[in-house]
Amino acid sequence: MMPRLALGRLQVIRSSSATANALRFAPRAASVPALSRSFHLSNSRQVGSATKVPPVAGGPVAGQDAMTGETIGGADIDPSALEIELTSSPKPIPPSSKLTFGRTFTDHMLTIPWNSETGWGSPKIQPYAPLALDPSSTVLHYAPTLFEGMKAYKNKAGVARLFRPDKNMERMTRSAARLAFPDFTGEHLTTLIKKLVDIDSAWIPTDPGTSLYIRPTMIGTQAGLGVGASTDVLLFVIACPVGPYYSTGFKPVKLLATTSDVRAWPGGTGGFKLGSNYAGGVVPQQKAAALGYQQILWLYGEEHRLTEVGTMNLFVVLEDKDGTIELVTPPLEDMILPGVTRDSILSLARAHAEGKNTLDGLPAKFKVTERNLTMPQIVAASKDGSLKEIFGSGTAAIVSCVDGIGYEDALVPVPCGADGLGDVARVMLREIVGRQTGEIESEWSELVA
Amino acid sequence: MMPRLALGRLQVIRSSSATANALRFAPRAASVPALSRSFHLSNSRQVGSATKVPPVAGGPVAGQDAMTGETIGGADIDPSALEIELTSSPKPIPPSSKLTFGRTFTDHMLTIPWNSETGWGSPKIQPYAPLALDPSSTVLHYAPTLFEGMKAYKNKAGVARLFRPDKNMERMTRSAARLAFPDFTGEHLTTLIKKLVDIDSAWIPTDPGTSLYIRPTMIGTQAGLGVGASTDVLLFVIACPVGPYYSTGFKPVKLLATTSDVRAWPGGTGGFKLGSNYAGGVVPQQKAAALGYQQILWLYGEEHRLTEVGTMNLFVVLEDKDGTIELVTPPLEDMILPGVTRDSILSLARAHAEGKNTLDGLPAKFKVTERNLTMPQIVAASKDGSLKEIFGSGTAAIVSCVDGIGYEDALVPVPCGADGLGDVARVMLREIVGRQTGEIESEWSELVA
Repeated sequence: MMPRLALGRLQVIRSSSATANALRFAPRAASVPALSRSFHLSNSRQVGSATKVPPVAGGPVAGQDAMTGETIGGADIDPSALEIELTSSPKPIPPSSKLTFGRTFTDHMLTIPWNSETGWGSPKIQPYAPLALDPSSTVLHYAPTLFEGMKAYKNKAGVARLFRPDKNMERMTRSAARLAFPDFTGEHLTTLIKKLVDIDSAWIPTDPGTSLYIRPTMIGTQAGLGVGASTDVLLFVIACPVGPYYSTGFKPVKLLATTSDVRAWPGGTGGFKLGSNYAGGVVPQQKAAALGYQQILWLYGEEHRLTEVGTMNLFVVLEDKDGTIELVTPPLEDMILPGVTRDSILSLARAHAEGKNTLDGLPAKFKVTERNLTMPQIVAASKDGSLKEIFGSGTAAIVSCVDGIGYEDALVPVPCGADGLGDVARVMLREIVGRQTGEIESEWSELVA
Repeated sequence: MMPRLALGRLQVIRSSSATANALRFAPRAASVPALSRSFHLSNSRQVGSATKVPPVAGGPVAGQDAMTGETIGGADIDPSALEIELTSSPKPIPPSSKLTFGRTFTDHMLTIPWNSETGWGSPKIQPYAPLALDPSSTVLHYAPTLFEGMKAYKNKAGVARLFRPDKNMERMTRSAARLAFPDFTGEHLTTLIKKLVDIDSAWIPTDPGTSLYIRPTMIGTQAGLGVGASTDVLLFVIACPVGPYYSTGFKPVKLLATTSDVRAWPGGTGGFKLGSNYAGGVVPQQKAAALGYQQILWLYGEEHRLTEVGTMNLFVVLEDKDGTIELVTPPLEDMILPGVTRDSILSLARAHAEGKNTLDGLPAKFKVTERNLTMPQIVAASKDGSLKEIFGSGTAAIVSCVDGIGYEDALVPVPCGADGLGDVARVMLREIVGRQTGEIESEWSELVA
């Protein structure tokens, strides 16, 4: 691995108001230290199974010098090279009751450029400002973009925490490999995100149910219309305070089970958090809304297998003949997004089922399975009373309960508690929020500073 | 339909060099005439078949005022409102032998902003310049982007033509509906594209096989992280001169038939020209290149049905037992991109087969079919000699012949002429280029000015 040149170490620049206002950020290769031949290790990672075919010529071997066969080191994101330029015109922070999700952003953003020749450039925390992109930038044409959603929470004492950032970083580097984007050490980006959150910590709301939503993003930025691996990538992180998701109580949602639109498929990209998985979902969602449904229930295959709900993972609660409660979610395979909340729910539920950490409110006879369920099975379970609960899980709402599914020519009723939560969802919400805010001691919770 | 307010009519502004260099274009709602309640007609169009389900509440009816039920008119792109700002610092035009595809852009670009409240803004031809996008712009996160590829050609006399722009506009408005983007009249955009091409007509190369590649694009631009229909959209058109695709003669390509990655699927977006269909193809292409293959042959289903080649449509030429030559391409359904070159080849080949317009070089016993073929069928046809030719079709190369397919554990040989072209591909290339340059009289060819 080649030595990493740092442009500057924690340089803090307080920009003049005029500079901050005039700022149009654009990644400039000239400002990135020149790391000769620092091709990135990500090129050597395999995504998915290799097709068994004969090579017809000596193709390039990723991660090796074509002439010498020597391994070429890839530079990493370097938190110690961070440059900080603080805004001199901080914005007023709105009260959390006035917030619309994803509309108000904090004073700063984190940017880290990457170039295939020069590797990762210096991370920079700077005033939130527009990005200047060439009209031929690859992200605008071929959609090489990935993102993460994570949150920072402040407890009553004002201590800020991140929830399982390692899981987001693990998924982000996996998404990056799927787009032929560069690899990086997740802990390094987490360090920089904590710095950004710490600088903007006044923006973390403290009312119950509020948080600071953090959006790490990677986009292909090079100018040029050829379809191929991105030679320039910009990693940026922005953050926005979010009000309580359930400000007016828990409202169960009705789902439209669509049989005409399909979100993901075997051999596709549905298991990665790529922007390209979302563009096609807007029109189906509009169709559902026009019929009065809040979300799409995405099905797959002729057997109408349940996969995801809108942009959330899906959980179903069933009661066996012997009275055992079963929490079911579809297996990841390559069609289901590996949600951090999904993983948290599975971990908590399994610990309870195995008697390792009993959770108040969950029955003793309880099991957890990852298996496929079909709509005909849901219809039958709704009729015979064995369907107890369906909920979605995700970073925004944590859990969102379902009280009906429009499917073919009927509305399939789904039980839901009078408070708008099912019994399992209610426990999961309590346990996860407790760990997010730090009220329940957990290794999932990391201090920001 | 409400009357359209035009900001200015063909205002020509010659910008100072300093202004042109400093320009950072950003769609500004303030510069768009305020058309109160001009929600767009596109919202009322249905894409795909509606799912048969009961409405559970009175949802909004698109294109109708929620209070009065009256139809709300949608503004259209208005070519008469065009504003022109010419560059005062034109760039040097490189010789066509020095051009790399999609790297060099002409002096100007066309931009047309749209907002859900104010409708389409004034079209503007202005110096080519970066776009300023908020870091939360929806295109950077959820990939609402679509594009077209079309070309302008100059004949020996210097007369510039577009090839079948109506087909691109038809596909573009269809793509727009699939992303819940606004509708527009295709002829209006074609008028503006002709104006852009005319202004930059010195950039259209004249060497044989060269052209000006034109890239109309639409992106969702509003700032905000909610997933939903775009309330702000930017339509922009850029153009780049391209050298002869086959500068060193026709080189047949070898394809890797991938069984692990799937480009498109029933109920997905593969039949629309959306950016989101391309991001996932880069890593499979890298895998193919590492094994020495030039392109991916995309398969679908357990029967390994042939669908597309890289970013091109696919044609197979077979010989029946009675000596009839059959030109086969997969049916569009919802997985195949409706290529303009694909349509042109089908039209020419059908006219020949039906005796309406006999083409030199094609046999008399000739038929054209849109049907699915599987890899096992191709393997068998390669063995028994009935496989005559396979080629891809697209705007960039027009045709690209295949001389082998890596499939499972073998390289399947595909016949190809000594000149790098199969017999059918050679005729199609000649007939299409003739119509593009205007050497063959055709209604497909439209004069730019």
